Amino acid sequence: MRKALHFGDAGTQHGADGRLRHLLSMEGLRDREILHILDTAESFLEIGQRVIKKTPTLRGRTIVNLFFENSTRTRSTFELAAKRLSADVLNIAVSTSSQSKGESLLDTVDNLRAMHVDGFVIRHPEAGAAHQVARHVGGEALVINAGDGQHAHPTQALLDVFTIRHYRGPMENLVVAIVGDVLHSRVARSQIYALSILGCPEIRVIGPRTLVPAELSALGVHVYHDLDAGLQGADVVCALRLQRERMEAHRLPSLDEYHRRFGLTSQRLEKAAPGALVLHPGPINRGVEIASELADGPQSVILAQVTHGLAVRMAVLTLLAGALGGEEE
Amino acid sequence: MRKALHFGDAGTQHGADGRLRHLLSMEGLRDREILHILDTAESFLEIGQRVIKKTPTLRGRTIVNLFFENSTRTRSTFELAAKRLSADVLNIAVSTSSQSKGESLLDTVDNLRAMHVDGFVIRHPEAGAAHQVARHVGGEALVINAGDGQHAHPTQALLDVFTIRHYRGPMENLVVAIVGDVLHSRVARSQIYALSILGCPEIRVIGPRTLVPAELSALGVHVYHDLDAGLQGADVVCALRLQRERMEAHRLPSLDEYHRRFGLTSQRLEKAAPGALVLHPGPINRGVEIASELADGPQSVILAQVTHGLAVRMAVLTLLAGALGGEEE
Amino acid sequence: MRKALHFGDAGTQHGADGRLRHLLSMEGLRDREILHILDTAESFLEIGQRVIKKTPTLRGRTIVNLFFENSTRTRSTFELAAKRLSADVLNIAVSTSSQSKGESLLDTVDNLRAMHVDGFVIRHPEAGAAHQVARHVGGEALVINAGDGQHAHPTQALLDVFTIRHYRGPMENLVVAIVGDVLHSRVARSQIYALSILGCPEIRVIGPRTLVPAELSALGVHVYHDLDAGLQGADVVCALRLQRERMEAHRLPSLDEYHRRFGLTSQRLEKAAPGALVLHPGPINRGVEIASELADGPQSVILAQVTHGLAVRMAVLTLLAGALGGEEE
Repeated sequence: MRKALHFGDAGTQHGADGRLRHLLSMEGLRDREILHILDTAESFLEIGQRVIKKTPTLRGRTIVNLFFENSTRTRSTFELAAKRLSADVLNIAVSTSSQSKGESLLDTVDNLRAMHVDGFVIRHPEAGAAHQVARHVGGEALVINAGDGQHAHPTQALLDVFTIRHYRGPMENLVVAIVGDVLHSRVARSQIYALSILGCPEIRVIGPRTLVPAELSALGVHVYHDLDAGLQGADVVCALRLQRERMEAHRLPSLDEYHRRFGLTSQRLEKAAPGALVLHPGPINRGVEIASELADGPQSVILAQVTHGLAVRMAVLTLLAGALGGEEE
Repeated sequence: MRKALHFGDAGTQHGADGRLRHLLSMEGLRDREILHILDTAESFLEIGQRVIKKTPTLRGRTIVNLFFENSTRTRSTFELAAKRLSADVLNIAVSTSSQSKGESLLDTVDNLRAMHVDGFVIRHPEAGAAHQVARHVGGEALVINAGDGQHAHPTQALLDVFTIRHYRGPMENLVVAIVGDVLHSRVARSQIYALSILGCPEIRVIGPRTLVPAELSALGVHVYHDLDAGLQGADVVCALRLQRERMEAHRLPSLDEYHRRFGLTSQRLEKAAPGALVLHPGPINRGVEIASELADGPQSVILAQVTHGLAVRMAVLTLLAGALGGEEE
Repeated sequence: MRKALHFGDAGTQHGADGRLRHLLSMEGLRDREILHILDTAESFLEIGQRVIKKTPTLRGRTIVNLFFENSTRTRSTFELAAKRLSADVLNIAVSTSSQSKGESLLDTVDNLRAMHVDGFVIRHPEAGAAHQVARHVGGEALVINAGDGQHAHPTQALLDVFTIRHYRGPMENLVVAIVGDVLHSRVARSQIYALSILGCPEIRVIGPRTLVPAELSALGVHVYHDLDAGLQGADVVCALRLQRERMEAHRLPSLDEYHRRFGLTSQRLEKAAPGALVLHPGPINRGVEIASELADGPQSVILAQVTHGLAVRMAVLTLLAGALGGEEE
């Protein structure tokens, strides 16, 4: 898996001066870089509480949301993050774009570069798309991977570790269990790297054999195919969205059967540590990977994740734009 | 009908302090509240005349246009209203949203609340959707119903009474006739309540038996199935858009037949009071519910309604945001 | 062709005071007007280099992008141009608009006028659509034709002559060849007028007999059906996009055959003057009308055209808005 995930991340994410200039995947990030992003996000958290939720940080900058897959949630958070930083935002959705006229990803990007945009937030169905763009634009514009195929979704992982740290402190003493369709999940891959870099001593993945790659144990991750066993004593439980649309046929008997075996409920959660945190990247499939009473209950921090996600994205945009400024000005 | 329309409006629209905090339907509003909105709108009317059509009223606030039905016209007016008040605007259209992934309305709203948005402008095909959202968010964000099924469209009714007052003064001395497909019209329902609250002494509805509910007479509304009789002496004539797409089969013989019996023309309008005002919520079906010569003629105030609609929406956003501020700060 | 192109441009584009108030087509523009736009654009070019890419020129103004045809590229450039001038921008795409409910173009425009928008950027599949709107709104709002059917695309022609002047100086001494599907190209028509008005002594069009109208020679344009002959000694070569979707059947044997006969490559370009400039309006069909090595090579100014296009659109918006202000204030 590590091999399959490797798109030359380290070399591409950092500039010649060693500064982070793109955010493409968790792999290749240093722990202090992640912590710096989380600390910066902490300072943005307060802006959401104000009446005037706005800072002039990115005034006069242009951020493009270049989405080749639909995602209202992710697009909206990035759009709001950029607008609250006072940037101009250009939303480009794939289905209405000249992509349908056959233009390539890099030709589209080149056109936007020629308009001197400062940043690209890219969601694309193919793994490695954001890396390709980052290698192409170099230090000219910042690139944030907002999800590329089944590869990575780094801002999701950042908001997850932000949330865990927010409620439980450093990762160093925590047992974290990830439950669900790990095989198809860019969220899970990014979470595993983020937790690992931040020193989480025990990362578990739980799911049916068809949805949890065996190679994961080579990464030091503990693999469970039984929910109760995997949840035993966990401090944090990260549910994954069951990607019905991505799942190939025959990997699961039925949604009911899946829920019965791997669906999180308050009752199943009793196996975890008392008051264990429950995370989910959203949107949730109620009654499939998670029961409503749990999703809406006191242990759930699912909506806090959304709040934190906005702060994390404001932090990432600010830090990467700062690195841009450093090279250009 | 009153029963069917009742979604606990009064309790939901007003906060514990009695202030209006959401705009969901005309029902439950007090006359002085409506007049306060109209007076505030009057002050915004002048902004549209300026070169710099902008006030800092909502700077740093975030307004979401959450549209589960297409409506360029309504969405554009709300978007412009919010932008001219300096708010950040997030447009979310249903077909491109995660709704298609099966997320519920309230889950979508909860996610946006978690991003600390200040207001929701909601259009939804189901009656009561905006009320449901308002009950859910309470005093945390303002909610404006931009049309929910066949129930209500309060800003349309406000711009209509604004327009009538603008040209004819208070409702107290006017005969107002509403012509068309009253049965399917949220516009008509909202108009009837608004006119009634403002003391209009004679409200008439005119239309074929299949499109005018008999229960209306219980509300003190005068029902006519003959256009000439209904127009007799009317000071204001509000045409309704014939919702072809909503009409069930067999309710109308044909569009030609409809126009012949209920279509407004300059000639038919001679039955009304001299210089009677003609309103229409748009977009108009020329030659169906209204003849082009009338729609474009001197008695028509259809485009003035659009101008007034922008001012009314700026007023509503400002007043509701002010109530928010009052509770939060 | 001149007859077919004539929509009363001169009378419509200029106000009673002789100032340019709309940009509808190159036809009818004076050379000094074009040069004034190019000079103004030159001053905007520098803004794209700044960190804060923003001027307050159009603050408080509202510009509507009214697109009845999809074009991410053109829409994005106009959106960015208006935003960098600090205008509020309203994007209206046809497929999601009330046009589908049967409202006419002018009814849509009238509604937006009633909201006091300051400018319309219009793309429409029918020739003459922008002229119709300009005649309708008169001096009340500026109208920019962003492409109307096979008629005109004036900002494209302006950015082309801007680019040629930028690299080669005045048109007076240049041989310019336009290669491709001239018959269906609003770009070619606009280029021919722009070059001609600016005094280009030799304009050539090159293409198969089925795609190059014979009438063109009446305009003083030199018609070639052989690529090598047409390129001979040319200083500037403007490739046209092959509009596959517009081409009627049987006009071309095949894309391969087209490329073999009229596709631009480095080798074919050797016939042109040394270092001849290569332009293309984009998006390019690599390997059809132009080879990748040429499009990405040192003679290509295709991406510079995009940069210049943004500056030209900022200039046009500024100049036309200035004329508005002059009449209104």
